[in-house]
Amino acid sequence: MKTEKISEFTINRLSIYLRCLNLLAASGVTTTSSQSMAQQFQLNSAQIRKDLTYFGEFGVRGVGYSVSELRKHLSQILGLGELHKIGIIGAGNLGMALANYRGFDPKYFQVTALFDKDLSRVGEISRSGVFVYHIKDFKPIVMRENITMGVICVPAEEAQAVLDLITDAGVMAVLNFAPVQLNAETGVKLKSMDLAISFESLSYFLARQESGSAEGQPKFLRPYSKDKILPE
Amino acid sequence: MKTEKISEFTINRLSIYLRCLNLLAASGVTTTSSQSMAQQFQLNSAQIRKDLTYFGEFGVRGVGYSVSELRKHLSQILGLGELHKIGIIGAGNLGMALANYRGFDPKYFQVTALFDKDLSRVGEISRSGVFVYHIKDFKPIVMRENITMGVICVPAEEAQAVLDLITDAGVMAVLNFAPVQLNAETGVKLKSMDLAISFESLSYFLARQESGSAEGQPKFLRPYSKDKILPE
Repeated sequence: MKTEKISEFTINRLSIYLRCLNLLAASGVTTTSSQSMAQQFQLNSAQIRKDLTYFGEFGVRGVGYSVSELRKHLSQILGLGELHKIGIIGAGNLGMALANYRGFDPKYFQVTALFDKDLSRVGEISRSGVFVYHIKDFKPIVMRENITMGVICVPAEEAQAVLDLITDAGVMAVLNFAPVQLNAETGVKLKSMDLAISFESLSYFLARQESGSAEGQPKFLRPYSKDKILPE
Repeated sequence: MKTEKISEFTINRLSIYLRCLNLLAASGVTTTSSQSMAQQFQLNSAQIRKDLTYFGEFGVRGVGYSVSELRKHLSQILGLGELHKIGIIGAGNLGMALANYRGFDPKYFQVTALFDKDLSRVGEISRSGVFVYHIKDFKPIVMRENITMGVICVPAEEAQAVLDLITDAGVMAVLNFAPVQLNAETGVKLKSMDLAISFESLSYFLARQESGSAEGQPKFLRPYSKDKILPE
């Protein structure tokens, strides 16, 4: 394994490659190549090769990758060997939506508990069966349930205090949905979801459309016509 | 402007640069450079320069970028010159959460209408004041309000039909939150949010932590200790 620095973008692309490989495996494909994956899924073959070399030598020149081997390796790199338990702080609309979200592989990710300071929400159960605890019970529940990931779904002005609470309880990986910049202690992995960025890429597209698609205008790397496995 | 293909990742980074420039402007900084931005915001200076060259020559060698000029240019590239009106389909927890989201710049993005097929939700008003219409009224409301962006917040099994409805109404830019792959007509910009990817990058981090941070383990490009302006 190289010692070079690896960006979040690379890690996110590994997730995408894994989704592609899962689709290939599901349709019975046993061997693939960076070119073939790039073609099928509108990816960049040089990028695939470069991303993978950070983590070792996977393919065989002239033969390609074993789909099952590469899936196993990528899963391992992404830490998808065990169940990660998730605690969500804020049981409003967003927290509830995430608790009910069905896009996670239940082998690897489970929303285990919701937390709120609002007594009227405490004791509620999400559609997916997740109980809402009082925020004051965060630390004991984290320890009892072995929660390793926290999700911040509270208003911006409460988010820093909630981050501090999460990390004080020993949870070191945090996803923040509040539209505010937070400071985490060293050693804590904090990821913020900025939904406005997604809308800005739509508005970039619309601005191109309106000005016509004449020669000289930038074009997207992938066709518009297909949804992707999909980063972004 | 170059005619090279420009990836979504580049566009998303432009959004991040714009956020950095906004912060600089707010603190009175009038000139910056790719090196200085990279240092302050844990970005990659070569990447900044490369991303910007797709769109022209902005800086002056040895002097750097004018913060106000570059903000203006990036805003223009990202189509942030006019108000984009957004229609959300699905007025459940996620749709309501997005309607109430305060991370959008209200000069550029406005959630104008919610839609649902569930009569018990029709007529509701979100905390932020957005009315829930019946889905059958989608097209007339889109035309009346000049809605240009659609957001899919319905269950996976209904998402394709909703996408078709959105594009039939002439809305060409769509953000999909349902965890399913969709097919859009040519000419439609479809972006899917895969929340599981964010959790996988947290699990990547946790896997590194557990195996220790010994020499030879990959390191992140940016320190863990700070939240970023932030992609991902």
